[in-house]
Amino acid sequence: MINVAILGLGTVGSGVAEVIEKNQNQIKKALGDSLHVKYILDIRDIPGAVKDINVIVNDPDIKVVCETMGGKEPAYTYTHLALEHGISVCTSNKELVDAFGVELSAIAREHNCSYLFEASVGGGIPIIRPLRESCGHENIIRIAGILNGTCNYILTNMKSGKNFDDALREAQEKGFAERNPAADIEGHDTARKIAILASLVSGKKISYEQVSCEGITNITPEDFAYAESRGMSIKLLGVYDSSGPYVNVAPYLVPNDSPLYGVNDVFNGIMITGNQVDNLMFYGRGAGKLPTASAVVSDVIECAKSIGHNIKNDFADLNLADNLVPAPAIPERQKFRVLGE
Amino acid sequence: MINVAILGLGTVGSGVAEVIEKNQNQIKKALGDSLHVKYILDIRDIPGAVKDINVIVNDPDIKVVCETMGGKEPAYTYTHLALEHGISVCTSNKELVDAFGVELSAIAREHNCSYLFEASVGGGIPIIRPLRESCGHENIIRIAGILNGTCNYILTNMKSGKNFDDALREAQEKGFAERNPAADIEGHDTARKIAILASLVSGKKISYEQVSCEGITNITPEDFAYAESRGMSIKLLGVYDSSGPYVNVAPYLVPNDSPLYGVNDVFNGIMITGNQVDNLMFYGRGAGKLPTASAVVSDVIECAKSIGHNIKNDFADLNLADNLVPAPAIPERQKFRVLGE
Repeated sequence: MINVAILGLGTVGSGVAEVIEKNQNQIKKALGDSLHVKYILDIRDIPGAVKDINVIVNDPDIKVVCETMGGKEPAYTYTHLALEHGISVCTSNKELVDAFGVELSAIAREHNCSYLFEASVGGGIPIIRPLRESCGHENIIRIAGILNGTCNYILTNMKSGKNFDDALREAQEKGFAERNPAADIEGHDTARKIAILASLVSGKKISYEQVSCEGITNITPEDFAYAESRGMSIKLLGVYDSSGPYVNVAPYLVPNDSPLYGVNDVFNGIMITGNQVDNLMFYGRGAGKLPTASAVVSDVIECAKSIGHNIKNDFADLNLADNLVPAPAIPERQKFRVLGE
Repeated sequence: MINVAILGLGTVGSGVAEVIEKNQNQIKKALGDSLHVKYILDIRDIPGAVKDINVIVNDPDIKVVCETMGGKEPAYTYTHLALEHGISVCTSNKELVDAFGVELSAIAREHNCSYLFEASVGGGIPIIRPLRESCGHENIIRIAGILNGTCNYILTNMKSGKNFDDALREAQEKGFAERNPAADIEGHDTARKIAILASLVSGKKISYEQVSCEGITNITPEDFAYAESRGMSIKLLGVYDSSGPYVNVAPYLVPNDSPLYGVNDVFNGIMITGNQVDNLMFYGRGAGKLPTASAVVSDVIECAKSIGHNIKNDFADLNLADNLVPAPAIPERQKFRVLGE
């Protein structure tokens, strides 16, 4: 039995507990052992939960911690502490991975444990691990991803004629957008995610602050009518292109023969172009309790198979990118770039 | 330096040599070592090629063999021999995996080497490994895959009004269909691939012969007009459904809100439905020299990282499925089943 702890019993954290409970039989088959949630840490008063991280990191039974708190603190301090104790950490926290992923990965390596973050990009979609393993030998030329389900839901609704404000309101009513939706609709969430993916494939750490970022607030129903007249749709994409290299977030016109064209509603789709394999796309639920938790659990199983060993995550040795160039300018008399042009 | 041998210098085999040569730098990064093609075996007179498998399996330098011959013999005998010598085998040969994958996987385990077959399904698309690793803890409810590029090319062309014979002829002229296209258009190729995927997730070996199989030869332009009037398209799908369980290959009506709807031309798309992660889709080139070779090379790298150890491929312990039921009947007054109904 492998004992784990969950830090933060919010949406994703409670999902992790649920996936571990409900899929125990499958987990045993995949891992050759069972997973047991020994501790839940939460700052709120939750029956059975602990509030002191030291209880967890000083328990030699604990081999893996799931950091599902979000935000920088106390997630950073707790992750640091766990890794220093040789406890692997699996996280869905893109903000932390972007800001401190390189440092935390180096600490993990030093202490023969692992820092994995599959759930930080694309929710339940397996993307980080396939990039690292199945595509590790590919020269990745481009990544173009629909990485924010809130924006994609709003844009899918605008395609059928709604204006931005109405589409946003509907997304908020259905729980797909926050009351303060800025991080989503201004593209910052997408920027964090494409920065993580671009760092993985470019060999340099690209940070969120280096990503030029335009959101979806200026898109009009007329823009959609224009796109449709050209057989295209409008999607908010995070793009990495090795030819600059550049990384940007912006609304793009997506032709209807692109696999990203049909990625609608809250779904995400990440297109990877390798020099040998050509275009791949990975599609699935980019957010939500159980899909995101499933990605965390896949990392937990990988860590549990490698106790006492560091799993190379390609982040530990990265230097900050100093070679980025701006994305190509939007062509004259066009409001948006066209994907692939 | 890790020495490998390529068995069969056809389309995929020569692609493997090319990927290893052209992506050597990326391979070094991914593997921490370089790959070197020490032998090529081919029955034809090719300068530098060997014809005797014993030269390869008796060379202690050889750690991994790529079996890209296709067909049952001599691929079976050569694979058997390599594995008995503790040499891992990576293959694109779906016929062999379907017929002898269980036996060969058990031999690999016994001799502390590995038998991997990422390239046998979906060409360049990472699907076997993500299923085994990223989704190993999921309870897979359904797989629905567009697994044959030839059929998908023909159907994409029929969608724009061509009849079957003209669409087939065009596919043959462009090199996307064989002169004898039976294995593709009658669904047998798709059946082999869905049998492999279904075996991986069901815990039983499902063989090609157990898959009820209907091809695309009876589809008419009128069928496409009807599909379009319902907002759907027609795709040849290989389907595994855990609720029977059943496995079948048949033309399906695919609604336009399914991610499979937009998988066109020679591309493949494989939708996986897990009980926690919900729908995932993996998309890419399902055939072709370099994409398929890239998948073989990803297996070679995995084997090269695990020399002396068996990589569990979930095939070694499977018993033949004895619990399959027929797929649900086609509803009255319909010619095809509808995906998801």
